Amino acid sequence: MAEASSSEELVLAFLAEAGDEFVSGEAISGKLGLTRAAVWKHVDALRAQGYRIDAVPARGYRLAEVPDRLTALELRPLLNTHDLGRELHCHEELGSTNDRAKELAEAGAEHGTIVVAETQTAGRGRRGRAWVSPPRRNLYFSAILRPDLSPARASELTLVASIAICEAIRQAGVEAGIKWPNDLLASGRKLAGILTELAAEPDRVHWVVIGVGVNVNARAEDFPEELRAEATSLAIERRTPAPRALFAAACFTALEDWIDRHAEEGFGVIREAWRERSVTLGREVTVRTDGREIVGIAEDIDATGALLVRGRAGVERILSGDVALLRPR
Amino acid sequence: MAEASSSEELVLAFLAEAGDEFVSGEAISGKLGLTRAAVWKHVDALRAQGYRIDAVPARGYRLAEVPDRLTALELRPLLNTHDLGRELHCHEELGSTNDRAKELAEAGAEHGTIVVAETQTAGRGRRGRAWVSPPRRNLYFSAILRPDLSPARASELTLVASIAICEAIRQAGVEAGIKWPNDLLASGRKLAGILTELAAEPDRVHWVVIGVGVNVNARAEDFPEELRAEATSLAIERRTPAPRALFAAACFTALEDWIDRHAEEGFGVIREAWRERSVTLGREVTVRTDGREIVGIAEDIDATGALLVRGRAGVERILSGDVALLRPR
Repeated sequence: MAEASSSEELVLAFLAEAGDEFVSGEAISGKLGLTRAAVWKHVDALRAQGYRIDAVPARGYRLAEVPDRLTALELRPLLNTHDLGRELHCHEELGSTNDRAKELAEAGAEHGTIVVAETQTAGRGRRGRAWVSPPRRNLYFSAILRPDLSPARASELTLVASIAICEAIRQAGVEAGIKWPNDLLASGRKLAGILTELAAEPDRVHWVVIGVGVNVNARAEDFPEELRAEATSLAIERRTPAPRALFAAACFTALEDWIDRHAEEGFGVIREAWRERSVTLGREVTVRTDGREIVGIAEDIDATGALLVRGRAGVERILSGDVALLRPR
Repeated sequence: MAEASSSEELVLAFLAEAGDEFVSGEAISGKLGLTRAAVWKHVDALRAQGYRIDAVPARGYRLAEVPDRLTALELRPLLNTHDLGRELHCHEELGSTNDRAKELAEAGAEHGTIVVAETQTAGRGRRGRAWVSPPRRNLYFSAILRPDLSPARASELTLVASIAICEAIRQAGVEAGIKWPNDLLASGRKLAGILTELAAEPDRVHWVVIGVGVNVNARAEDFPEELRAEATSLAIERRTPAPRALFAAACFTALEDWIDRHAEEGFGVIREAWRERSVTLGREVTVRTDGREIVGIAEDIDATGALLVRGRAGVERILSGDVALLRPR
């Protein structure tokens, strides 16, 4: 599914504005400059996308129920970003939103383009690991950025995105924290992940794709059995489902805000914001990196975003690896 | 054009081994287990590719002339690398060898895959600048590498490639030197360039494509008028054409040798080798970077490959930029 036609969006907006009231086909067609047949066609198309629209002779139409769907129709009116999502590609199914975003980026898609999918058949996490992507329950999106950065600094964007998504999750009422480098945890369990990929020359990035997966309304049974003890969702934590389109829009806004702060103020503010939201720092951790295992206290992240772990041999600087938190706080 | 058929290669090798002698069709077909018709078909195909093969009744075939072409048929017997060029894609024409190599890399092509083109219709240098690519005169190739490196260290590979190509050029009898970061000069004029591109996660490279363009047999009139004063070729410098396939094979060998040294010994030896071949160090330079212009003495490269320029405001570390050498040495 590509972009929604704008008159479809207008019909929907008109119905939404009327709230519980019926509006006549004449009123809609007069106001929007559409034929009655066109109005009917749009109502029909909206119904096919899960909108429940009552139609009563002599009274007209009424929007009775809005589906919890991540379509351009639902997302676009909720956007209040300047760049992110201005170009919006919503799909019912994709292999992976990052793969699609990378194709679009390679073909020249502009800064801020966002790809959303209701399900991923080959969702990926860091280092090619699978990301469980049940349909129509969660949020899977990728944003194409064209920052003025060297590839050496791309890891900063993973931290930027972690902070932003952490913030959106907290706004949704769940006390999330960041586990270095790219996981968001709640109650010690995985709630969301970030996958950053890039294309570059050695001295400058061509594009960065930031992939975000958040378990929004997944139920325990949506996770494979071996992950159930480790995974959670907003709905599980809140004990009530979350409206996904609103949450997605909040993620886009937070992501753009933090990308702007990073571009304007540099990594210093990001490092500080990351520290505040970290569940890694101050904890005893085991880090698996390059076939080695380092046990120690995660003390800080440095000016490049690397994790500093004080082990027996002194402080080690970890550029990449898997962190296990040893003791619950 | 994809890979050469191996019986075609065998017929060519058989003829080449016989030197000035004629070899009978029977001898070829007997030795290689081919029908006479197959032998004839291969001779025909070789002729179509520019090989001059004499055929005299009752005496047989003789290889009279080998074309100066960069085909798998010419290149494969000259390779003495373990990885580079084992998978070899030779094209008469491409948009850009880097673009093709990037597609192959994205599709999973293995470490060492090389793409060669006789001409490029959209040859590129750093930052999307055009690279003049007249047909059948020069060398344009791209190598796909899958190094165990972070993207922050990808710039080292540009220096690795510069050293290797400088070495191959010197073996061909031309006193080349390296201008930071990616140009090879002879007599102060541009002889070759390197374009490194990569895809990565922030902590590890997925693949690197190193593109190499060397002006081998280009004549002054092959360059656009505005570049003639700035560009040169092996043939112009040596005053005689160079056999391109041999030179290409020498480039592959040197590139692999230096890639191996970099992987085994790290950046220290690269930095040292680069310094020895540099025409930048010790010179007064103007560097254009980020819209600024820095004038000073190029003192060194640091442990990350950045150029250190001592200007009025002290030493500046240049990660990316265009260097103009102010005074000839």
